[in-house]
This record gives sequence, structure tokens and C-alpha cells, in this order.
Amino acid sequence: MYPLELQKLIETFKKLPGVGNKTAERYALLVLDMEPGEVEDFSNALIEAKTKIHGCSICGNYTNHDLCDICEDSSRDASVICVVSSPRDILSIEKINQFNGRYHVLGGLISTVNNVMPDDLEVDGLLRRIDSQVKEIILAFSPTMEGETTALYLSKKLDPNIVVSGLAQGLPMGGQLEYADEMTLIRSFENRKKV
Amino acid sequence: MYPLELQKLIETFKKLPGVGNKTAERYALLVLDMEPGEVEDFSNALIEAKTKIHGCSICGNYTNHDLCDICEDSSRDASVICVVSSPRDILSIEKINQFNGRYHVLGGLISTVNNVMPDDLEVDGLLRRIDSQVKEIILAFSPTMEGETTALYLSKKLDPNIVVSGLAQGLPMGGQLEYADEMTLIRSFENRKKV
Repeated sequence: MYPLELQKLIETFKKLPGVGNKTAERYALLVLDMEPGEVEDFSNALIEAKTKIHGCSICGNYTNHDLCDICEDSSRDASVICVVSSPRDILSIEKINQFNGRYHVLGGLISTVNNVMPDDLEVDGLLRRIDSQVKEIILAFSPTMEGETTALYLSKKLDPNIVVSGLAQGLPMGGQLEYADEMTLIRSFENRKKV
Repeated sequence: MYPLELQKLIETFKKLPGVGNKTAERYALLVLDMEPGEVEDFSNALIEAKTKIHGCSICGNYTNHDLCDICEDSSRDASVICVVSSPRDILSIEKINQFNGRYHVLGGLISTVNNVMPDDLEVDGLLRRIDSQVKEIILAFSPTMEGETTALYLSKKLDPNIVVSGLAQGLPMGGQLEYADEMTLIRSFENRKKV
């Protein structure tokens, strides 16, 4: 129904996560309403991001240099490494302003369903980074089957002299106890703290 | 926090309708995960659509030729013109397969709030198209203040010998009577039909 180039643009937008036909249509039609210069900027922004952004050669965080801002920042504590699945987790953690150590991006989590094995992840890179300076490794994974499998695997691989910790599990802030799933409630009992 | 090029791509995605920070971030991060060729295709699709797609010289529908597919299709009934606000309304109407006439895109609706005056719309183009062949004009606007104002304005401008009709108003299919707004309920009483 739509002319070829418009249909193609709609199909392209549908590759974005969570974008169906209707939304892709709205996006494409907005592009047609943009000024030509704006569309050119959009087009260039895609290419620029893809060509200039890559993984930090130490931790795997996104950067346009050799090292990311965090690895270059000498004020960050080198004795704690927070291991995450993807660079976007780094952003979430940086936003809370609670952690001043370094990061390491695994590039995924072990998953038998998606056929992701330890060899597919940046495990060797992590092990190589661990020197006498490192005192603690925080495994900051989502509390899913994949996250727990990966945490278990890494905890066995890591030097037993290093403290290996994981993020606390329990009721989320503002959540209703009656709506918590069983597993969350079980964990919140197991990990109960003295008030 | 994010490197410059990534931040810029996120800002770019935020120009799309209904896209906030979180969604733009997801889109941008997906782009980084795409193959370089895919990103190039994305970038080209934007430019291609913007440069090749324009309004049909008769009706204003999107086309990559001089005339759109509908205006070129001689099997379409030239005696009925369906006037719409934007080309995307044409797609909605084409999907229901009920209308076999021609279209005319106004390029908006009269709106005092948004300062859209009749001169900003393709009214003259519509009046010029009306010849002895045309028997009916269907004003297919959304039942809003703007839609009704535009319909009133056009109905006064059009030749009184031509039938001018508007889309029916009433309860939407599957809608609950108790949740219908007052105006919809009023219209559904006014326009009640013998069963």
C-alpha cells in the first residue's frame, strides 16, 4: 500500500525492540515530516554511533576511546570489580552513586536455553585482570536462572582468597508483600535482617 | 555518562513520537548490537524515504512517482472524493476495503489552538479538482473540535449540488455503553437507526 521506500523504512523500524507495525508506521511517518537536515542528522547519528563506539579494552564498557571513562578515572577504587552482563547495567549502577570501584562486562550470561557457554563470555579477561590489588568481586546479575548459573560458575573459578559477593535479593522497594512471587518471598525470609 | 556518539543517537531517537529516555536508550543500544551492514541499511532507509517520498500531485497521498497508486488506478470511482487530514488516514480507510473512490489530503485540520487556518490547508486544490464528474464528497475527519470545524468550513465552500457527507458517529464496536463519554452517547441517540 505504501510506496516502496516508506514500506522499507517501516520494516527497518520494526527491527527495534518492542516496535510493531503501528509504531513503526508512526515513526516512519514522523521521519517524512522532519526537515531534510534532521533526517540527515538521524542517518549520520546511526553510522557515527556504530563506527565510533566499541568496548573498552579493559572492562568492555562502551567508549569512543581505547579506555572508557571509568577505567581512565584513577580516583576509582581498583580493589573492587563489579561484574555485569552488559554495558547498560553499568549505567544503572552508576546512576545510584553507591559504587566507586571498577567494572567488568561479561557480554552475556551463561544460558543453556540460548546456548551461551562460559567460553562465549569475557571470563578469561576477568581472570587476567585480577591481581593482588583486587579484594572483592561483586557479581551484579539479574536474579534469573541465567544470572544464578553464571554467578555459581564464576564463584568456583575465582581465587578463594577474594571476597565474592552478589546483590541482595528480597522485596523490592514499594512492592506489596501480597503480590510478591513465592521465590522473592522465600528469599526475603532467608535473608531477613535484624531491625 | 555514555560516550558522545551514543548519547547523540539516544537524543535522536527521542525525537520519535512517544519515545522517552529509557526507550531511546534501548533502541540506541540495539543499534550498537546490529551488524555494521544493518546499521548502514537503516541509515540509508531514512535518507531514501525522505528524498524519494513526496505528496501525489493530485491528491497529496504519499508516492515515489508523480501520481500515487490510487490516482493512477483508473478502476477507482472518480465520482466520490474522500477528504482526509493526512496520508495515514488513507491507509486506515484502504484497510477496510469499503471505499473505491479517490482521496484528497488536506494536510491538517483547521485549529485555532495550533493556529492552522484554511489557507494552510489544501482547500484550493480540492475545489479545483471538483468537476462535473464528482457527485459526492466524504469528509472523513476525526470527530474532534478541529475535525468538526473543518467539516463545517468545507461544507460551506463546496458546491451545494454535490452531496457532502461525514462519517457516522456513535458507540464504537465492542465498546461498553456505561463507559462511553456523554458526547458519544448523545450522538448515538441522535443518530439512532431502525433495527
